[in-house]
Amino acid sequence: MPEKNELMEKVVSLSKRRGFIFPSSEIYGGIGGFWDYGPLGVELKRNVREAWWQDMVRGHDDTTPPPGMPSPYAMVGLETSIVMHPQVWKASGHYDLFHDMLVDCRQCKARFRADQLATSQCPEKPSKRPGEHTTCDLTEPREFNLMFKTYVGALVDPESEAYLRPETAQGMFTNFKNVLATARVKLPFGIAQIGKSFRNEITPRYFTYRSREFEQMEIEFFCRPVESRLWYEYWRDRRFRWYVSLGLSGERLRLREHGREELSHYSCGTADIEYAFPFLPAGEFGELEGIAHRGDFDLRSHMEGKLVRRGEELVVETGPDGKPRYPGSGKDLSYFDEETKERLIPHVIEPSAGVDRSMLAFLCEAYAEDAIPDENGIPQPRVVLKLHPRLAPIKAAVFPLIRKEGMPEMALDLYRELRKNWNVDYDDRGSIGRRYRRQDESGTPFCFTVDGQTIADGTVTVRDRDTTVQERIPMTQVAPFLQERLVTG
Amino acid sequence: MPEKNELMEKVVSLSKRRGFIFPSSEIYGGIGGFWDYGPLGVELKRNVREAWWQDMVRGHDDTTPPPGMPSPYAMVGLETSIVMHPQVWKASGHYDLFHDMLVDCRQCKARFRADQLATSQCPEKPSKRPGEHTTCDLTEPREFNLMFKTYVGALVDPESEAYLRPETAQGMFTNFKNVLATARVKLPFGIAQIGKSFRNEITPRYFTYRSREFEQMEIEFFCRPVESRLWYEYWRDRRFRWYVSLGLSGERLRLREHGREELSHYSCGTADIEYAFPFLPAGEFGELEGIAHRGDFDLRSHMEGKLVRRGEELVVETGPDGKPRYPGSGKDLSYFDEETKERLIPHVIEPSAGVDRSMLAFLCEAYAEDAIPDENGIPQPRVVLKLHPRLAPIKAAVFPLIRKEGMPEMALDLYRELRKNWNVDYDDRGSIGRRYRRQDESGTPFCFTVDGQTIADGTVTVRDRDTTVQERIPMTQVAPFLQERLVTG
Repeated sequence: MPEKNELMEKVVSLSKRRGFIFPSSEIYGGIGGFWDYGPLGVELKRNVREAWWQDMVRGHDDTTPPPGMPSPYAMVGLETSIVMHPQVWKASGHYDLFHDMLVDCRQCKARFRADQLATSQCPEKPSKRPGEHTTCDLTEPREFNLMFKTYVGALVDPESEAYLRPETAQGMFTNFKNVLATARVKLPFGIAQIGKSFRNEITPRYFTYRSREFEQMEIEFFCRPVESRLWYEYWRDRRFRWYVSLGLSGERLRLREHGREELSHYSCGTADIEYAFPFLPAGEFGELEGIAHRGDFDLRSHMEGKLVRRGEELVVETGPDGKPRYPGSGKDLSYFDEETKERLIPHVIEPSAGVDRSMLAFLCEAYAEDAIPDENGIPQPRVVLKLHPRLAPIKAAVFPLIRKEGMPEMALDLYRELRKNWNVDYDDRGSIGRRYRRQDESGTPFCFTVDGQTIADGTVTVRDRDTTVQERIPMTQVAPFLQERLVTG
Repeated sequence: MPEKNELMEKVVSLSKRRGFIFPSSEIYGGIGGFWDYGPLGVELKRNVREAWWQDMVRGHDDTTPPPGMPSPYAMVGLETSIVMHPQVWKASGHYDLFHDMLVDCRQCKARFRADQLATSQCPEKPSKRPGEHTTCDLTEPREFNLMFKTYVGALVDPESEAYLRPETAQGMFTNFKNVLATARVKLPFGIAQIGKSFRNEITPRYFTYRSREFEQMEIEFFCRPVESRLWYEYWRDRRFRWYVSLGLSGERLRLREHGREELSHYSCGTADIEYAFPFLPAGEFGELEGIAHRGDFDLRSHMEGKLVRRGEELVVETGPDGKPRYPGSGKDLSYFDEETKERLIPHVIEPSAGVDRSMLAFLCEAYAEDAIPDENGIPQPRVVLKLHPRLAPIKAAVFPLIRKEGMPEMALDLYRELRKNWNVDYDDRGSIGRRYRRQDESGTPFCFTVDGQTIADGTVTVRDRDTTVQERIPMTQVAPFLQERLVTG
């Protein structure tokens, strides 16, 4: 394996070269913090989303629930709008939380949060000591909101202000009653959503890791307060296993429980699933997913208004007039428990994952270099993406060894048969060795080659991406072979 | 079938009642032009997207190409960012094209485009004659841009202005060179994208038909100029057949070629696929998809700058200084044709479909009312969604007839087996008749019931949504039965 920073450069370079990820609007010089997914990238991203949806939503009840909890429980999907009523973000607390005061250094143009100036490392001059900027020539603090603002309707005025959502979660809370009323669900149950979110990051960086436009896969799991710790542990452990099942290794992946002092003021427990991304210094980890026990904070906020902690209590923040500073909807978001005949505000467990970050971790983990012998037995360096077969953008490639003697016709027949079920590539250009290398760089698990022997006995070679071992199987067995191998990985 | 307007009210009501579509931020009073998709809606929407991706991208080469054209040709996917470099929209022409002057009537608060005032019907008072507002008390014209504006970065100033994309198409043009360089494609080839777009509509209306946030499924198909008419006709006819294959009926669907006077100044031909949505007056049709022959307009715009027609020519629009008013990227977006050894700007065929509009047409088409006999043979009215099985949110439901005698256990086993491959519902609540009605309203094609006979001979009943006919099949045959029926429809 290459060194960490070198590895990151190689992943970025491969992403560009093979068509996984491009800078957005690249021909116009790009736009910081925005990325496009290319032909292979979009297939990988679709597979990440599909694996999550299949494992968390459609196949959600294949796992063993905590002791004493019901199975199957319900898990339903939602897709809510990116632009929501602005009051949603005021009641939820995002409007205040995402509001920063910023200062700029007139000398080196570095930008800092005013409240973090004393401890910040200069992003422009890493040689400076943290906090050294407190002595330099700074601008006055300026207001900044991490939420992208826009205007809905014909007028540009405060009445028409709206925001691009900074998370998909609030759309699930605002629809809590709609889901209860239409999906006939009982506690415990989950709502799941995949969608784009936006944060106007001050310093987007680390490739797609910290972007201004990104995609989330979020679950809001509603349960009885007394059962919430069990469900928190269930989701924390289940989400960790999900990354392992798709190929992230134990040594670079870790589960970190937040300490008491790190917890949001409403949270009874939060854990981060973290990955040792190669762009980070040795020993440091970056967040892949957060699993938060959010209590009744969100539903209460949308009932009563923005909440703040007073001692051990969460209370509605009031303005000088004694009224809620940011009122909630006033709607009743409680749940009537048929079993206990009690009305309650459910507690929420929120596993919140990033599509782009997961994909980046899978790419970094999969990147490998080795050497394989050429036709003369001399080892030649090779780059290979050892992606889990469920994630691989192309599941198989079909080659005719040469472009004559009926091989292309047979290969095209096989290609068309496989394409009905999988994303399959057909390639008849260049030497067979070069075709293998291209598929290795794309992460394609299996290559099937139609050669002279195929015409004689109906067998093709199947070549394994990771071992490079070749064997022969009957052409009629290719589809069943793939069916089996692609699921188990 | 109900009357047209009555039908629309019923579709809206069913969408809310069964959890297909909710107003966004409903608990806060909603926000005009934004919609959320509920548990059934998100599955239907996913199925529309998946059918398009499978038929247009993965399985794109199953169709016969125009005479003399190659097969298979390449079709690759992209997912580009919603926020792009602002120059993209200036060079593409959207910045100017989407810029309107608006006036308001001070009496009835209706809003009009200043240039259409003389012919506009008042939306607030339909009894008035078109154009009558020219005589009333109007505000001064005000600037309005159909693109939502936001600011990227810490400063709110003209330098940091950016827009939410009003179409996904431009992301495919700006990546044309990236696709050429990484996907090894040769002309003709297509780029496909599914994603959200935004237009700040002055009067969002007709349920989800005219929304401010919507989802598109767009293809940019690049070909040699001399072959472009053949490919235009190919895509126009192929896209029409796609809607028919998923259940839209011939009488409510039509293909309408634009007349010469309707064509955009750069287009050699455009056709709309239109549907007789029930919210429209009798005899009127609404656009589902446009298939446009765009020539080399888009690639040239991003090379040279914003184009305008001068006589028969497209030329770069210049400012007072003689320089391009909105410069392009200056990058070379031409293609070197290995066959003819010539460099050319490919022509583009653009089939541009709406996910939300397709879904709304499928819902309207599927809505039906009939009567089926109850246990006493008396006909009872029924609402049923006759969705194509590929589109149905829930593919099958499994019921135990009663909640004892081992039936729930057997039904849960069957449910868990089917869930591995399909979205399947399990329901043990209420009478069997009520359970059928719930699935009918959800569009579920098949219901399987475990009853007393199942324990004796291992068979279950399968009940067909459309005919309501029941037959018995062995439990072991349920998965193969579904496999066959769900594809063919």
